[in-house]
Amino acid sequence: MAKKIVITASLTGVLATRAQCPYIPYTPEEIASEGKRAVDAGASILHIHARQDSGMPAYDIDTYRRIGEEVRKLVPNAIINYSTGAVGISNEERIHHVTALKPEMAALNMSSMNYAIYSPKTKEFYHDFVFQNPFKDIQFFLQKMKEAGTIPEMEVFDNGHINNASPLIDMGLLQKPYVFSFVMGVLGGIPISTQNLLHQAASVPAGSHWQVIGIGRKQWQLIAAAITIDGNVRAGLEDNFYLPSGEMAKSNGELIDAAAKMVRMLGREVATIEETREMLNLKPVNQKVLSNI
Amino acid sequence: MAKKIVITASLTGVLATRAQCPYIPYTPEEIASEGKRAVDAGASILHIHARQDSGMPAYDIDTYRRIGEEVRKLVPNAIINYSTGAVGISNEERIHHVTALKPEMAALNMSSMNYAIYSPKTKEFYHDFVFQNPFKDIQFFLQKMKEAGTIPEMEVFDNGHINNASPLIDMGLLQKPYVFSFVMGVLGGIPISTQNLLHQAASVPAGSHWQVIGIGRKQWQLIAAAITIDGNVRAGLEDNFYLPSGEMAKSNGELIDAAAKMVRMLGREVATIEETREMLNLKPVNQKVLSNI
Amino acid sequence: MAKKIVITASLTGVLATRAQCPYIPYTPEEIASEGKRAVDAGASILHIHARQDSGMPAYDIDTYRRIGEEVRKLVPNAIINYSTGAVGISNEERIHHVTALKPEMAALNMSSMNYAIYSPKTKEFYHDFVFQNPFKDIQFFLQKMKEAGTIPEMEVFDNGHINNASPLIDMGLLQKPYVFSFVMGVLGGIPISTQNLLHQAASVPAGSHWQVIGIGRKQWQLIAAAITIDGNVRAGLEDNFYLPSGEMAKSNGELIDAAAKMVRMLGREVATIEETREMLNLKPVNQKVLSNI
Amino acid sequence: MAKKIVITASLTGVLATRAQCPYIPYTPEEIASEGKRAVDAGASILHIHARQDSGMPAYDIDTYRRIGEEVRKLVPNAIINYSTGAVGISNEERIHHVTALKPEMAALNMSSMNYAIYSPKTKEFYHDFVFQNPFKDIQFFLQKMKEAGTIPEMEVFDNGHINNASPLIDMGLLQKPYVFSFVMGVLGGIPISTQNLLHQAASVPAGSHWQVIGIGRKQWQLIAAAITIDGNVRAGLEDNFYLPSGEMAKSNGELIDAAAKMVRMLGREVATIEETREMLNLKPVNQKVLSNI
Repeated sequence: MAKKIVITASLTGVLATRAQCPYIPYTPEEIASEGKRAVDAGASILHIHARQDSGMPAYDIDTYRRIGEEVRKLVPNAIINYSTGAVGISNEERIHHVTALKPEMAALNMSSMNYAIYSPKTKEFYHDFVFQNPFKDIQFFLQKMKEAGTIPEMEVFDNGHINNASPLIDMGLLQKPYVFSFVMGVLGGIPISTQNLLHQAASVPAGSHWQVIGIGRKQWQLIAAAITIDGNVRAGLEDNFYLPSGEMAKSNGELIDAAAKMVRMLGREVATIEETREMLNLKPVNQKVLSNI
Repeated sequence: MAKKIVITASLTGVLATRAQCPYIPYTPEEIASEGKRAVDAGASILHIHARQDSGMPAYDIDTYRRIGEEVRKLVPNAIINYSTGAVGISNEERIHHVTALKPEMAALNMSSMNYAIYSPKTKEFYHDFVFQNPFKDIQFFLQKMKEAGTIPEMEVFDNGHINNASPLIDMGLLQKPYVFSFVMGVLGGIPISTQNLLHQAASVPAGSHWQVIGIGRKQWQLIAAAITIDGNVRAGLEDNFYLPSGEMAKSNGELIDAAAKMVRMLGREVATIEETREMLNLKPVNQKVLSNI
Repeated sequence: MAKKIVITASLTGVLATRAQCPYIPYTPEEIASEGKRAVDAGASILHIHARQDSGMPAYDIDTYRRIGEEVRKLVPNAIINYSTGAVGISNEERIHHVTALKPEMAALNMSSMNYAIYSPKTKEFYHDFVFQNPFKDIQFFLQKMKEAGTIPEMEVFDNGHINNASPLIDMGLLQKPYVFSFVMGVLGGIPISTQNLLHQAASVPAGSHWQVIGIGRKQWQLIAAAITIDGNVRAGLEDNFYLPSGEMAKSNGELIDAAAKMVRMLGREVATIEETREMLNLKPVNQKVLSNI
Repeated sequence: MAKKIVITASLTGVLATRAQCPYIPYTPEEIASEGKRAVDAGASILHIHARQDSGMPAYDIDTYRRIGEEVRKLVPNAIINYSTGAVGISNEERIHHVTALKPEMAALNMSSMNYAIYSPKTKEFYHDFVFQNPFKDIQFFLQKMKEAGTIPEMEVFDNGHINNASPLIDMGLLQKPYVFSFVMGVLGGIPISTQNLLHQAASVPAGSHWQVIGIGRKQWQLIAAAITIDGNVRAGLEDNFYLPSGEMAKSNGELIDAAAKMVRMLGREVATIEETREMLNLKPVNQKVLSNI
């Protein structure tokens, strides 16, 4: 039987605002409601950044705790995946909610890179940033996740970033299944193309589980290509507001529904939360977990 | 601007019968009606096999002439593409309608191969046939097409079959754009996979135009993957009766509509007949052509 | 530790004659002497076609028996691999020496194809042959090899030919390790290129062992590319007379020596006969085997 | 006719010392002598870092001027390619010799990345550095090279780094042929493998010229693979001290000779300086150039 496809919902992110898309959730309650819509449409994993009620990013443990509580009320069995990405705060602060709340998954970046935006119209770079993630920081985050029993979701933006896992596996900081997210379409990283996706997929170590994260308008073509090679996919208002039809989505649920439809159109099935838990060696949620998150 | 995607409709074939799918057209009038539905849904090229009114294959010039006349009545500008594939008749008979009617395109097979069907359930081969197309036959067909001013659509079932065009280009029997159809999923040829599709696409000579033809249930995943790499696609009752939803299509129009929707979902546009004519260096249909076909 | 590279020597073939290359062995004694030179230079496997003393092909059991005896005298532990390829004789005759002599390996063709030679100078095909190997013949040969305890070396000339093993694995006619030879560079099959080699290598089922067979002048580039991806290689007077320097080899030993040098230049080691036996699950040669071959 | 292969000699670098390899040139005279040996063995392009007489790196214009003068005395027509790579000095200092001396080529780095060394034995990172090259620095270097009439050799360590050229092409900072060096084998960048090499080669824009730079013991396998796909190659004491035989080279000449032998073994020819100049649209050296360098 063909492998089932896991869908992750990236509910909110931190960059986009309601001025750009009025459906982006900010408060824990809003995030939980969007999580429910996403799960109802087929998502197993909820990738969550915390926000202040104003929409500004939040990094404090308490906000993450409240988000976890609200999400658990509505979708008790969904797999919660917290961000650790942040600029301008200490590494300790970037990871303290993982240590405190022990989520089942958390994302981290696997390399340094240029992270830029260029406008062909004005022929200028609008954003030109060196995203710094030396190995000592990666080791630090992985150590903390290991202590928390949290599965690291390794965000890789280029081919060599995948190989960066090798020494960390050798050091015992990573266990199977190794979970990779191929982020594609950021200027400075690997561009979106089916050729690049296949090369990334062919580059992961044995015993890996991977998904694609497509940034911008080519996201849907990347998702389609990933499904055809048994990859998992992520959609949500963090990554792209627009449905395949070109219309702006009115909720994360609509985006996950579009991804799930694409899975079925291409002859595959969407993995249930239980099936995803099995692939990732995650136990069903129980009281102990509920009391933490 | 991204390349537009050409859709070919394979209206009827010769193998499938109305017992299997009641919507398969047999008579010239039925074929033309299905051609109209396909064009209305987005097809530019109509790939046509002739049938007797009983549904049995027809190879005579007259049936092909009547099909051409009926199609021209309903969709005067569509690009007509006749089959030359047949088993058990002479090469002369396989090509005589091309010589007589000078269609704008005609398909031919570019190699010999095993052509088989295996049942994993019974562990038996149900069909085990050596499809023979030595170079001398290919040369013969190409020479006749060249004399008729017909563009050869080269059906290739494996990687080496693409390279078979090389000596024929060297001999002057083929002109740019070289038109390839990657037929995938026949046991004996290259299997359907996105990896295989990308390798086929990377193997065509410069100045080629290609489409995919997927046989069986994996057709839609192949079409999706092809669209993501700017390939052209074929759908129709000859190749697969079923819509991406799993339901049997009620017409070629429904299948072409599904393909066109997929094109748009993946951020591309469907080429109009005029745009397809431009890609293939085909003039608009005029009286002279109409008088022939 | 990096995988060691197995070298097969194709000692004589049946097509080339001493008019073309005076060093081609014909008699059992000559073939054995060449086998000894090849083994001394690093070959583990000897791929052998029988010849009459005149150089014409021989298909009789007795000649094969004499070859086996002579080879065993000089290189008792080498792995003997007999051809079953022939045109114009019955399938029974093509396999009878395998049934009678139970060699450790024997080669067979895995598909039908065009097998042609084209001259760009005269713009003519010099050879244009449909090589017919329907599944029923392949099944027949595999069944006989299974009964003889002989490992089938599956010669595949295109990508789809690899997939032809799938139903035969499903039927129980093939056991791991599946042994594939990628024959490249025959017109009608997949051309020699590093891109094509990597695609072939990526297409074999799990548990496969493969080597490359390059026909003609590009053989050495194919061997080099194969070594870089841990593939095994074949050289010998059957495939190509010329050393990497461009000079004609004076023996199979010189060709195998050149292949072994290339293995070492590229940072790998040549597998010994014992190491090759281990990879292929072949026992060391013992008296019982000696009495047969 | 097959494309000829250009060989670049990386004569000295700045990291390796005579304690590690006694044949590394330090002074302008030594560098020039090594340049002569390299050119005699087949190199067309000399990639040069300046050193103080003690072996420590030099960045001053005068040392580069003296190197140019000495090189021109011995090999007047060789293509000189200066490094701009340095850590701990200003961008102005990294490029001032290019502005002053207008070499025909100069290398620059095309992205930020982790640049690390890991020891599997001690399970520690020995080096863990964020190599920062934001787009504004790249723009600055390219602008200065454009003003000097110097061809930029773009050193790319990963797949996305190739795409970093796209906005710079769009801004008019790069002209055809775009010259890429695929640096492979640095931890933090793309690992050495034939699969990765082919993917890099397939990712360059139309109108590109590329070579491989392999770091460490797998260099020769990378060079061999590159030759088989018509790529150009670099060897020299900067990259690897060891010959394919495993012995330490006694000069750059020996390393270039080994590369040239590999080119010929794989059926290709080494490009002469004149042929390389033609590929890169570089005029023959004349008095004006000589007076500058």
